[in-house]
Amino acid sequence: MTSVAEAQRLVLATARPLPPETVPLLAATGRTLRQNLTADRDFPPFHRVAMDGIALAFEAVAGGQISFPIEATQFAGAPPQPLQNPRAAVEIMTGAVLPPGTDTVVRYEDVSFEEVDGQRVATVHALPERMGHNVHARAADRRQGDLLLPAGTRLGPAEIAVATTIGAATLSVTRPARLAIVSTGDELVDIAEQPLPHQIRRSNAAMLQAAAQAADAVTEAFHFNDNQDILRQGLPALLRRFDAVVLSGGVSKGQADFLPSVLRELGVEQIFHEVEQRPGKPFWFGQMPGGVVVFALPGNPVSTFVNYYRYVQPWLRACQAPEMPPAPAAYAVLAEAVSFRPRLTYFLPVRLDMAPDGRLLAHPQRAGGSGDLASLLHCDGFLELPPEQTEFAAGEAWPLLRFRE
Amino acid sequence: MTSVAEAQRLVLATARPLPPETVPLLAATGRTLRQNLTADRDFPPFHRVAMDGIALAFEAVAGGQISFPIEATQFAGAPPQPLQNPRAAVEIMTGAVLPPGTDTVVRYEDVSFEEVDGQRVATVHALPERMGHNVHARAADRRQGDLLLPAGTRLGPAEIAVATTIGAATLSVTRPARLAIVSTGDELVDIAEQPLPHQIRRSNAAMLQAAAQAADAVTEAFHFNDNQDILRQGLPALLRRFDAVVLSGGVSKGQADFLPSVLRELGVEQIFHEVEQRPGKPFWFGQMPGGVVVFALPGNPVSTFVNYYRYVQPWLRACQAPEMPPAPAAYAVLAEAVSFRPRLTYFLPVRLDMAPDGRLLAHPQRAGGSGDLASLLHCDGFLELPPEQTEFAAGEAWPLLRFRE
Repeated sequence: MTSVAEAQRLVLATARPLPPETVPLLAATGRTLRQNLTADRDFPPFHRVAMDGIALAFEAVAGGQISFPIEATQFAGAPPQPLQNPRAAVEIMTGAVLPPGTDTVVRYEDVSFEEVDGQRVATVHALPERMGHNVHARAADRRQGDLLLPAGTRLGPAEIAVATTIGAATLSVTRPARLAIVSTGDELVDIAEQPLPHQIRRSNAAMLQAAAQAADAVTEAFHFNDNQDILRQGLPALLRRFDAVVLSGGVSKGQADFLPSVLRELGVEQIFHEVEQRPGKPFWFGQMPGGVVVFALPGNPVSTFVNYYRYVQPWLRACQAPEMPPAPAAYAVLAEAVSFRPRLTYFLPVRLDMAPDGRLLAHPQRAGGSGDLASLLHCDGFLELPPEQTEFAAGEAWPLLRFRE
Repeated sequence: MTSVAEAQRLVLATARPLPPETVPLLAATGRTLRQNLTADRDFPPFHRVAMDGIALAFEAVAGGQISFPIEATQFAGAPPQPLQNPRAAVEIMTGAVLPPGTDTVVRYEDVSFEEVDGQRVATVHALPERMGHNVHARAADRRQGDLLLPAGTRLGPAEIAVATTIGAATLSVTRPARLAIVSTGDELVDIAEQPLPHQIRRSNAAMLQAAAQAADAVTEAFHFNDNQDILRQGLPALLRRFDAVVLSGGVSKGQADFLPSVLRELGVEQIFHEVEQRPGKPFWFGQMPGGVVVFALPGNPVSTFVNYYRYVQPWLRACQAPEMPPAPAAYAVLAEAVSFRPRLTYFLPVRLDMAPDGRLLAHPQRAGGSGDLASLLHCDGFLELPPEQTEFAAGEAWPLLRFRE
């Protein structure tokens, strides 16, 4: 049997970069960038006024001047109007270019205006703290040519905004991984069918499709009954057409568990079978030499779920952003004591909440074993409890496998 | 000025349920359920075999019997074969119906087989712990008619799997909110244009579209220059066509900040203007009596961002799932001391990481003020520091506004 850490290492070792594709900017939200984005101009591109008020030369106020004739009004989006008289000021709006000849902005709250002989005059009531106050200086944030977003970045709203700023109307992003999702099992019927008393509907495939699509993969679902000939005929096309094949069921010790032998027969090399964990122990993992990767997950729904999040999703991330380190580990604190005797890594189903002291608390959830799909509705993730320990005290923090935010 | 808590209360008071729409199951991932889903059958619907092995009557092993002739083999998906001889056993596969007359499963690992006079016979090496061992009993998890998923549930992979189990091939979900995203400002040009030296591209609209789409809204972007007539002509159609109008810019004290007066002129009632916070203080919020809601956010990009996540997104959630309580508060722990003197709620930009003791740590990020869009690239959220305190010590936990997972 393979340890969880070793299984993870072996899975990630098969990750290969997915090719890029070009998409319109807004369609790139949630995708992974495949190009470096650099600053086309300085950030900000000019000395940008940060408050509505008046722009003046700091030297004048520092020298004791408090009244300033207003020479002009400068709006955002207008070409800058240089200050003519260094002892005057320009009335100025947020987002405007700081007028040449000025270096400091005094906000409206600290200024009053009056008319003196038909001339608008501003009186400054609170001296600016320093030269450059309320001015967002050119290049203060980034310089032209600076790397803003490296390839491998996951694109959220902030990244989309930065890409807009530099005019990146289309982006090169990772092409979605193509996953074949395959359920196996004679007891499984389609969602549209009325199951006979000894049948159930195929929920694992839907679960895997929903999870993989949320992780930016495209999926297609298939079903094969537990029959060697059907598997031998159906699997080869999937092994050719997809980046990975994710199966559920057919990998345990039953007489109808043909998958490991049929996959080997079809040329898929077994990398491991059985992981020292519960649930999800019968997980079989293999790869066509240099090619498609096969995750054959045990079919109990909670087992399928744990193995998807523990192995398949990190593999997807590694294929999407090969230059990025794996996501940092998350931890949560056991809210009550737990005991688990088998020498297996135990994925304990937990509901999470956050204590006001900033600790993430994990409340163990009663579940009817790995077949209890409905128990997942009240869980947010699994604590990963190591095999070398049997008693886990309240207050201990353990790695967290989270599937719900 | 309005406090942050009061602004939140006033915003959420305008939330109205969005109408339902029906979508295919997989398209419902990430959406909000608008119907109650109940169990169509018991969960499991039959006494389900949980391990490959043999099914027998516990009474027989409890009475000391260890050898069992195998009467039949029962596969998953086949109609159940009742045990004929109560001292015999049925070889049985995971997922099968437990044969009537048996009540317990002994897994293959604890059984050996031999042929005796042409009869397959199993010998049990480890007695089952209890009657019902390795059987997932009918209705153990849920009973027919039980409420599985209430209206208002956000649909993730586990919920999609449960919906599949009960045959819900289509689901009634909340229709996406329709948001008009409006940038204002004469300095702003389209992403496809080459800005003049005093111009910049419209990044706020892209940011708001990306964020709102990720929160299951549909958006359409508009731009208006800082001109009262343009606003008077352009806004009425948006106020009729959308659930909410989210503007950025034009709400501060500048001479081109026409939005509050034009919105009032168009019949939008002001609910508040200016919130006791930094950044984002000039936020203006209003509503057409009984109708469309208007978020007029200040245009500095960090201000727009904070106000979107603090007010607009919770409003969207409340419209999507009016029966659900607001998302529980999150907290993070300041990793270093911070000082903030103004009597305003301070949204401190932070990078998050998780300590192995389960605490979420917030590292304050240097930023060039509310105009420093690029600083958001290195942030995961904002700590919400209250106005009545000026010194915030390392180790203190404060509410967290998170925008990146």
